[in-house]
Amino acid sequence: MPEHAISPTRVQDYPEWYQQVVKAADLAEQSPVRGCMVIKPHGYAVWERMQGILDGMFKATGHQNAYFPLFIPLSYLEKEAEHVEGFAKECAVVTHHRLELGPDGRLIPTGKLEEPLVVRPTSETIIGAMYAKWIQSWRDLPVLINQWANVVRWEMRPRVFLRTAEFLWQEGHTAHATREEAVEETLRMLDVYATFAERDLAMPVIKGPKTAGERFPGAVDTYSIEAMMQDGKALQAGTSHFLGQNFAKAQEIKFAGQSGQEEYCWTTSWGVSTRLIGAVIMTHSDDDGLVLPPRIAPTQVVILPIHRTDEERTAVLDACRVLERELAATTYAHEPVRAKIDARDMRGGDKVWQHVKQGVPVRVEIGPRDLASGAVSVTRRDRPPKERTSVPLAQFATEVPQLLGEIQQGLFEKARAFRDAKSARLATQADILDFFAEAAGKGGFAHVHVADDPAVTALLDPLKVTVRCIPMEGPDEPGNCAVTGRPVPRASVLARSY
Amino acid sequence: MPEHAISPTRVQDYPEWYQQVVKAADLAEQSPVRGCMVIKPHGYAVWERMQGILDGMFKATGHQNAYFPLFIPLSYLEKEAEHVEGFAKECAVVTHHRLELGPDGRLIPTGKLEEPLVVRPTSETIIGAMYAKWIQSWRDLPVLINQWANVVRWEMRPRVFLRTAEFLWQEGHTAHATREEAVEETLRMLDVYATFAERDLAMPVIKGPKTAGERFPGAVDTYSIEAMMQDGKALQAGTSHFLGQNFAKAQEIKFAGQSGQEEYCWTTSWGVSTRLIGAVIMTHSDDDGLVLPPRIAPTQVVILPIHRTDEERTAVLDACRVLERELAATTYAHEPVRAKIDARDMRGGDKVWQHVKQGVPVRVEIGPRDLASGAVSVTRRDRPPKERTSVPLAQFATEVPQLLGEIQQGLFEKARAFRDAKSARLATQADILDFFAEAAGKGGFAHVHVADDPAVTALLDPLKVTVRCIPMEGPDEPGNCAVTGRPVPRASVLARSY
Repeated sequence: MPEHAISPTRVQDYPEWYQQVVKAADLAEQSPVRGCMVIKPHGYAVWERMQGILDGMFKATGHQNAYFPLFIPLSYLEKEAEHVEGFAKECAVVTHHRLELGPDGRLIPTGKLEEPLVVRPTSETIIGAMYAKWIQSWRDLPVLINQWANVVRWEMRPRVFLRTAEFLWQEGHTAHATREEAVEETLRMLDVYATFAERDLAMPVIKGPKTAGERFPGAVDTYSIEAMMQDGKALQAGTSHFLGQNFAKAQEIKFAGQSGQEEYCWTTSWGVSTRLIGAVIMTHSDDDGLVLPPRIAPTQVVILPIHRTDEERTAVLDACRVLERELAATTYAHEPVRAKIDARDMRGGDKVWQHVKQGVPVRVEIGPRDLASGAVSVTRRDRPPKERTSVPLAQFATEVPQLLGEIQQGLFEKARAFRDAKSARLATQADILDFFAEAAGKGGFAHVHVADDPAVTALLDPLKVTVRCIPMEGPDEPGNCAVTGRPVPRASVLARSY
Repeated sequence: MPEHAISPTRVQDYPEWYQQVVKAADLAEQSPVRGCMVIKPHGYAVWERMQGILDGMFKATGHQNAYFPLFIPLSYLEKEAEHVEGFAKECAVVTHHRLELGPDGRLIPTGKLEEPLVVRPTSETIIGAMYAKWIQSWRDLPVLINQWANVVRWEMRPRVFLRTAEFLWQEGHTAHATREEAVEETLRMLDVYATFAERDLAMPVIKGPKTAGERFPGAVDTYSIEAMMQDGKALQAGTSHFLGQNFAKAQEIKFAGQSGQEEYCWTTSWGVSTRLIGAVIMTHSDDDGLVLPPRIAPTQVVILPIHRTDEERTAVLDACRVLERELAATTYAHEPVRAKIDARDMRGGDKVWQHVKQGVPVRVEIGPRDLASGAVSVTRRDRPPKERTSVPLAQFATEVPQLLGEIQQGLFEKARAFRDAKSARLATQADILDFFAEAAGKGGFAHVHVADDPAVTALLDPLKVTVRCIPMEGPDEPGNCAVTGRPVPRASVLARSY
């Protein structure tokens, strides 16, 4: 074995390390269709874990799922001017609805559509058109709907999970009678995302509003959660938009209020996508491959039988099956522990490294010697691959929930400590230039007071740095803009980003 | 109230009755996008129930989920000649990847693609292309993958759930080393569908292979499950295809066998779709609206508080909440009973009828008198809306699992009795003409020996009747074809169909 399972290492070449981790963990790969990925079973199983937890959180906050059309007539997109500007550039356009077989055996598009259809890049316009029909009176409000769907945004430089032409996501779309309720909903869903990111993905995030230039096209306010990857760059992991009455006016989403007068609704939208899988990879993985937080790991404990003779095999496999059953009867995070025996006939070392590279949180080896001594050999994915602990077999299943909890918590704390070490509070323009200088090891999150002003953008653009958000937590700490000198109520977070 | 909640009734106008049931149950509606439906929360909740059960059955039979691209390059479709013929007619074709805003504020498609992309009508070709990369040796087999996805087949005469341009489905795609294994898989999944239809949807089905003319384009054998709707027509509720080596040869899906020689894989595919929601509606619903089998009902028991004064309200709601908790602690079909209190402030009669029309299996009313007498008033959706039973409150929760089981079983038996009454064994050409004569009340399933022969099609075409399948159950009963007189090993089922 080389020193590390993944080559290059993070220090050697971070972007290539990411691609190699995805490959070694068998999560996904590029398809022959430009910019579209194939999510392989292991990657999809991680997505199913994320979906299951989020879906429960959406339902617990009163939302229902529904499904709206994949296609949006061009004229719908045209209705909201800023929205057009934002999404008009990168759409898949359906222009024909039939194929005919030419004499050479090639297919020719025919049946030209009167109005071209866009494959949804996001669904505000088509869902808004339905809401305009469904909502008549204040009694119909609020409407709280979520959709799990695929969306398409043409990408010139695709990167698996992070930026793909087609991706999977959820998009919540809600309509309310008052501004206050809509703002409350926007922030509630931001909190749901932050809780999910920190509790389930073990990924610390900063919550806050975006500056005007970084808002969703057509939104009054866009809030995001921002996480730090191991190269110091920010990754926007979820967004929640307060749309005001902009879309309601463009689409005539109106209701009769309690006193009978007609009013426009206040709407919100919010979403997270398969990009979160990329975020998890880049937050926790190491030079041996993927590291999965236990709460979203499809397999939490892999049981590895070790044997040479047929007689050993029988005894060892029996013990493995007993342990598997014990683990399934044990609970972690309100669910049965997900344990699996890997009894495949292959070299033991290869098998172990496959599970290391796939990020399984806990590995347990059971061989004849372990059975004789009544103990098992336990390895944790958050520790060096050769660091083993011997645990009495009779105790192991009972101890697993605490072990998984420790790993989950440890990953979160490690990621937070990393982020904090790569963060700084800055005061001046010179500080900013210095912090983001291209010298090795520089960069990270800069907390600094800046105004929402073109002079700030002019300083940051050449550095490829943006204002990620204006963190909401902690007390207001007014200061002066590092660039313009103007008083600003709160500091922003600046960073390079994905 | 009119005599029935749905107008027209089934006898008056069956197709229009169907549309009105969908509307009254708030399941779905046509969108402004031609042929595409919007699945509303209640309809989607039914689909989620179906998905959950099927997904569990797929995983229990060794399958994993994955996700493949929405788009298929034209050249991929062209590879399998029969497949081209079958799917070339009705596809949405993406020809551009960009939109530009014209001076008049209208959007114009630009960025013409070198090769047009088809929105998947089914994914054999794109998934096969990936399998060709993934499969090298017999050690990589079998590959057992399922995908939950949206697909698009342009429809000129759309009908909600039954025939829509876009629909949701699952498609299983498997690759095997031998013909035997692939055939076994094809039949295993047909059995999974039949079990699901009969056990969970309470919908009796007939399993069997299709005739050559009714096969999936490119398949060696297509098997289906066929259900009878209340107008006597057949609905194909699921299909499982043995693809032989046809797709493997077209797409070069090869493996090195144990002795080293290169061989083509044997592949299968199988799917069910949101069409099943239409099938459930047309199997069980009555002139008062939707009837849902308990196993797939999002709400199995609705608790309706009845009160006038505030004092009554407090006491009644407390009792409702206790009952809701008791029900959630009770198990039916290995899951907690899904009970919901409907405490909305609206006319009691309207509320009751809403739940009738939405198909909730059990309604429980609790008012001050019930509390005083220690009993609740129970109504079942499979019985007339006014038929009430009084059940001691203390016993109700304990009795609910049995009650739900009775309703589930009763619906199945009623549907089977209906089908059997509308089925006949026929022997001659005259029998067939008579059975499918347009006179009222005629039609249904005709069990008759027919050869897979153009003469049979020539007789059936003018009647709009097709051979649905050749039922597999029961012993072989050879006979002579009613049309050609040729000996045939088994009888077929003939019917009009959706």
